Amino acid sequence: MKYAHSLEFSVRDYECDMQGVVNNGAYQNYLEHARHEFLQSKGISFSEMVENRINLVVVRAELDYLDSLKSNDHFTVCSNIRKISRLRFEFSQDIFRIPDQRHMLQAKIIGTSLNQRGRPFVLNELSRLYDK
Amino acid sequence: MKYAHSLEFSVRDYECDMQGVVNNGAYQNYLEHARHEFLQSKGISFSEMVENRINLVVVRAELDYLDSLKSNDHFTVCSNIRKISRLRFEFSQDIFRIPDQRHMLQAKIIGTSLNQRGRPFVLNELSRLYDK
Amino acid sequence: MKYAHSLEFSVRDYECDMQGVVNNGAYQNYLEHARHEFLQSKGISFSEMVENRINLVVVRAELDYLDSLKSNDHFTVCSNIRKISRLRFEFSQDIFRIPDQRHMLQAKIIGTSLNQRGRPFVLNELSRLYDK
Amino acid sequence: MKYAHSLEFSVRDYECDMQGVVNNGAYQNYLEHARHEFLQSKGISFSEMVENRINLVVVRAELDYLDSLKSNDHFTVCSNIRKISRLRFEFSQDIFRIPDQRHMLQAKIIGTSLNQRGRPFVLNELSRLYDK
Repeated sequence: MKYAHSLEFSVRDYECDMQGVVNNGAYQNYLEHARHEFLQSKGISFSEMVENRINLVVVRAELDYLDSLKSNDHFTVCSNIRKISRLRFEFSQDIFRIPDQRHMLQAKIIGTSLNQRGRPFVLNELSRLYDK
Repeated sequence: MKYAHSLEFSVRDYECDMQGVVNNGAYQNYLEHARHEFLQSKGISFSEMVENRINLVVVRAELDYLDSLKSNDHFTVCSNIRKISRLRFEFSQDIFRIPDQRHMLQAKIIGTSLNQRGRPFVLNELSRLYDK
Repeated sequence: MKYAHSLEFSVRDYECDMQGVVNNGAYQNYLEHARHEFLQSKGISFSEMVENRINLVVVRAELDYLDSLKSNDHFTVCSNIRKISRLRFEFSQDIFRIPDQRHMLQAKIIGTSLNQRGRPFVLNELSRLYDK
Repeated sequence: MKYAHSLEFSVRDYECDMQGVVNNGAYQNYLEHARHEFLQSKGISFSEMVENRINLVVVRAELDYLDSLKSNDHFTVCSNIRKISRLRFEFSQDIFRIPDQRHMLQAKIIGTSLNQRGRPFVLNELSRLYDK
């Protein structure tokens, strides 16, 4: 599979819970950071948009937890984005452990963009991200 | 709708991000805490299970973000659980804002229990939680 | 000791780390939430100030970790505030476990207020909070 | 100043709060991760110690917040460790923004090691970390 963006991370021990593995909630943090870096790499700054009162928001998240990341693990978050309707886009994101490439998590994150009045609108800048 | 368990929360400002609303990842924290309190209310202690090296784990999470919680909001996390296969159970969880009962989030969290060797097994204690 | 404000919390399992106790960083979250609720109880809304581009900021934190909170623990964060200079205030905050009142953490948090241009200034609303 | 260890980070947007800057609590996360990587670089694995029921714990933290990290900032956490008594050690940690080397945070973190019975003891492995 080919991805439009990938980013390496190391597990941080404060992300692990009493089970000794990364807490379920922390994966959404990883995925968000990878999406924002993906956008940034294409010249779209999440924080500048917020300053201009344009908000990218998640409307649905689906996460399949395939295996657990642990202390000292390194991993890659790989991301693609596609348009799924006039107003909505979907990130497909996968987490692979380094170095064995084990597939740890698979996610679909559906989002939309809200204008200054909080209404969904077509953010033209996103079109340059979509798979051709 | 009737729920087997409900728990009230207040938004904490550190859970809000630069958009001025609760960050997407924080909802999984709310849902986890509500599930653990639900289990605890039925005599099942998450931390005691961990000490006995029995782990309840999430295998899939689906979250529909319907509206955004903000600073000073109060809300209720309402939960049900049902068995969906011999080894898997599903929590249905909804977040309602207080006092207007606006539906903010809807989630399905599918889990299983792992024994000391990390293998899925039937945790009998859970049967007392299932909807009759 | 008498406190101007106190707030009850329950440990949430995602706040615990692989040592099976609340992670050091989570205590700052507890303290912040207690401070903001303290301010709110006196009619000072942290989020409204942010909207008006007035920022309360921490300039120094001192935390003494006396004992560790664990899963299922309940506790109270007790807070006082005093003025320590024209521009700075200090919160004294203590965490006591419920029900045995064991002293778990002691903290001093020094803050100041920044105006729209990011400069320290005297926020008059704070004066009503100070110990007489 | 010379440091025994340094580690680069990027601000992640979920670490920023409604003020649009990194939340105070997140700095303790950065510092902890840097300490654990420092230990790891010297052959001391935090998670292995936990498995052997040996716990490194923080007994006091002092943090001076000099300036605020923001979205898209990159920074270095620089750390030293020294012995301050038979049973206690102190990490001095500084955060510098990249690329302008602005000093953002200065911290002292005092810790000790607890044995299987929760009693402070001299962890010999730490001696190889101390400044000569």
